[in-house]
Amino acid sequence: MNDHIYLDSAASTPVADEVIDEMLPYFKQQYGNPSSMHKFGRETARAIQLARRRVAKMIDASPREITFTSGGTEADNLAIKGAAMHARIKASERTRIITSSIEHDAVLEPCRYLENLGLSVTYLPVAGDGLVRSSDLKSAMSNDVSLVSIMLANNEVGTIQPVKELAGIAHQAGALFHTDAVQAVGKIPTSVKRLGVDMMSMSSHKLNGPKGVGALYVRSGLEIAPIIHGGGQESELRSGTENVPNIAGFGKACELAANRMSQYQEQVSALRDYLIEKVAKEIPHSRLNGSQDRIPNNAHFTFFGVNGEDLIIKMDEHGIATSTGSACSVKKQKSSHVLKAMGFSYEEISGSLRLSLGMQNTKDEIDRTVGVLSSVVKELRELSPFKRKYA
Amino acid sequence: MNDHIYLDSAASTPVADEVIDEMLPYFKQQYGNPSSMHKFGRETARAIQLARRRVAKMIDASPREITFTSGGTEADNLAIKGAAMHARIKASERTRIITSSIEHDAVLEPCRYLENLGLSVTYLPVAGDGLVRSSDLKSAMSNDVSLVSIMLANNEVGTIQPVKELAGIAHQAGALFHTDAVQAVGKIPTSVKRLGVDMMSMSSHKLNGPKGVGALYVRSGLEIAPIIHGGGQESELRSGTENVPNIAGFGKACELAANRMSQYQEQVSALRDYLIEKVAKEIPHSRLNGSQDRIPNNAHFTFFGVNGEDLIIKMDEHGIATSTGSACSVKKQKSSHVLKAMGFSYEEISGSLRLSLGMQNTKDEIDRTVGVLSSVVKELRELSPFKRKYA
Repeated sequence: MNDHIYLDSAASTPVADEVIDEMLPYFKQQYGNPSSMHKFGRETARAIQLARRRVAKMIDASPREITFTSGGTEADNLAIKGAAMHARIKASERTRIITSSIEHDAVLEPCRYLENLGLSVTYLPVAGDGLVRSSDLKSAMSNDVSLVSIMLANNEVGTIQPVKELAGIAHQAGALFHTDAVQAVGKIPTSVKRLGVDMMSMSSHKLNGPKGVGALYVRSGLEIAPIIHGGGQESELRSGTENVPNIAGFGKACELAANRMSQYQEQVSALRDYLIEKVAKEIPHSRLNGSQDRIPNNAHFTFFGVNGEDLIIKMDEHGIATSTGSACSVKKQKSSHVLKAMGFSYEEISGSLRLSLGMQNTKDEIDRTVGVLSSVVKELRELSPFKRKYA
Repeated sequence: MNDHIYLDSAASTPVADEVIDEMLPYFKQQYGNPSSMHKFGRETARAIQLARRRVAKMIDASPREITFTSGGTEADNLAIKGAAMHARIKASERTRIITSSIEHDAVLEPCRYLENLGLSVTYLPVAGDGLVRSSDLKSAMSNDVSLVSIMLANNEVGTIQPVKELAGIAHQAGALFHTDAVQAVGKIPTSVKRLGVDMMSMSSHKLNGPKGVGALYVRSGLEIAPIIHGGGQESELRSGTENVPNIAGFGKACELAANRMSQYQEQVSALRDYLIEKVAKEIPHSRLNGSQDRIPNNAHFTFFGVNGEDLIIKMDEHGIATSTGSACSVKKQKSSHVLKAMGFSYEEISGSLRLSLGMQNTKDEIDRTVGVLSSVVKELRELSPFKRKYA
């Protein structure tokens, strides 16, 4: 895949060499069940402890506040259903959840599931830049709200929400605050203390760790209900034999991400800004979407007069991996609920393309990408019924 | 760990070399999100398809009947809560679940959770050999039962339940049948067609595959509700970015297990029988527990006058890994609910030890193990208040 260009790091990332090295001993040599009382078990239990410390350190938490899950989606499910079911078990009068209309499906679908079970959910609107307005949250709050869940960085347009402010508003009304930080951790500072959140979801494979592992930060003292019941691993909050190699790898990936954070921000955002400038200069009738408050690796465009999926297929034929938005929504073949909520027209949604970068990308790759993109956009516009408009 | 002897294969197993080889490309080279439309995504989607075919083949199912999960515990949770919540959503009048009193906590705890939500659960007794009597299931059945869940092989004593017969009884009363086959797959034939089950749980790390992955067989046409909601992966039944390397490894492990099945059965049960004979001959006041219908790798003993946990610790000091029973129960520090249900006295439970074998074990290891075990049992009995009884 040496001549290929991967610009879809928001969907998944290559696993770093140091991370693979961290994982390998736990397949064939140290394969004990961490719950076992013997040496084989103690070895793997120690590996999990180390990983827990590393993940905790990255987000300024205590190790005991980290619950490992099978990924970001499970972490979101655990936070939302766990808080809601705990409130129900305690017969709490707080039976409403507030979230935003641009959350990932891993937040929205658990909310819809809870609606089916009789809970009420409020979906906050966003402005054209993809930001939740704190005034909207303020007016939606009342003392029937158990939980507010608003993502730290959006997976499509990369917008960074004012989570600290939003969490403060939730807390003033006595509600809990959860943030899906899957796209943010390792890319921008995510101190749970500074953000003031009660729960935060993370995913390993978005920061050069392995797939199949993530974590939920649960503030010390906060009780939520498990969603997977059994042997009582992870302090009774997440049962199932721990995925030791992947947990160890995730821990290492967090350590690397924390250490390289400023280098990442500098290098990746410089390359991303170069891409944005180049697209603006070389591709007419194109527009950058989202807000100035954006994660360093995201650039989201609308190319008027073309279809985003055609773009992806054409780019792929040239060996360049891009995306219309959420990889997870492809299965559902629906158009972006995020862009709809931002007030985009059908044409603006249709022509959208996400380019998400990583530290492996180079300036030469960006030059080649914009060159190909420019000619592909021109080619597709030639075939379009709106040909004349964008000639 | 070369001088160590691992006799805890029921808790976890080393990952086979061929399995590691199958996984490695998906960390650094083929790291796309399987939902992505580009080449990187198609590569990993293909890897999942191949794994799905391999898992399906081992259990005589269709690939579309396999839903990948994060492990056996999640598979059990999905089967039980998924069937129960689907019945509830459909407002079914079938609101009772029947299970056995010797199930793994991954089945029992979801049942208890559903009891909290208002469902009713019947826990069938077992005989002294650990077998569920079909007459007991027959008399417990009625048309308020939605689901019967009885494990194929017990994780502590290795007893194989008459699942085909039990499934027939459940079906006659119009109920679904689920079996937790985590300890059975790869060790005894587990054709879902011949067993006649509607759902079956599997785990990868019990058959020389990686931790963090498993699967639920769901018979074609059967609808259950998801327990993790989000992007709609796994045909809407299990959301979250697929754990590609582990799924690929699990598929390979199933292929290997299916191919080596008769060799495994012959080699491991011969070694296990050798162990049983040797213990009977060399260690007085010991007893083999369970039934003749037992999986090939399991031997479960009671050594009267000693404490099983002391035994494990002493054996561990000699470099030999053993277990009292379920690794997953260690966290809860409770005595075995399985042995209690089998009618064991406190002393019989206390002195119990599980030795579970794998293909890596040798006759020499068994000789050394029984030698150490014999002297350790003697030593512990010397310290016991019942010293005279077992002198």
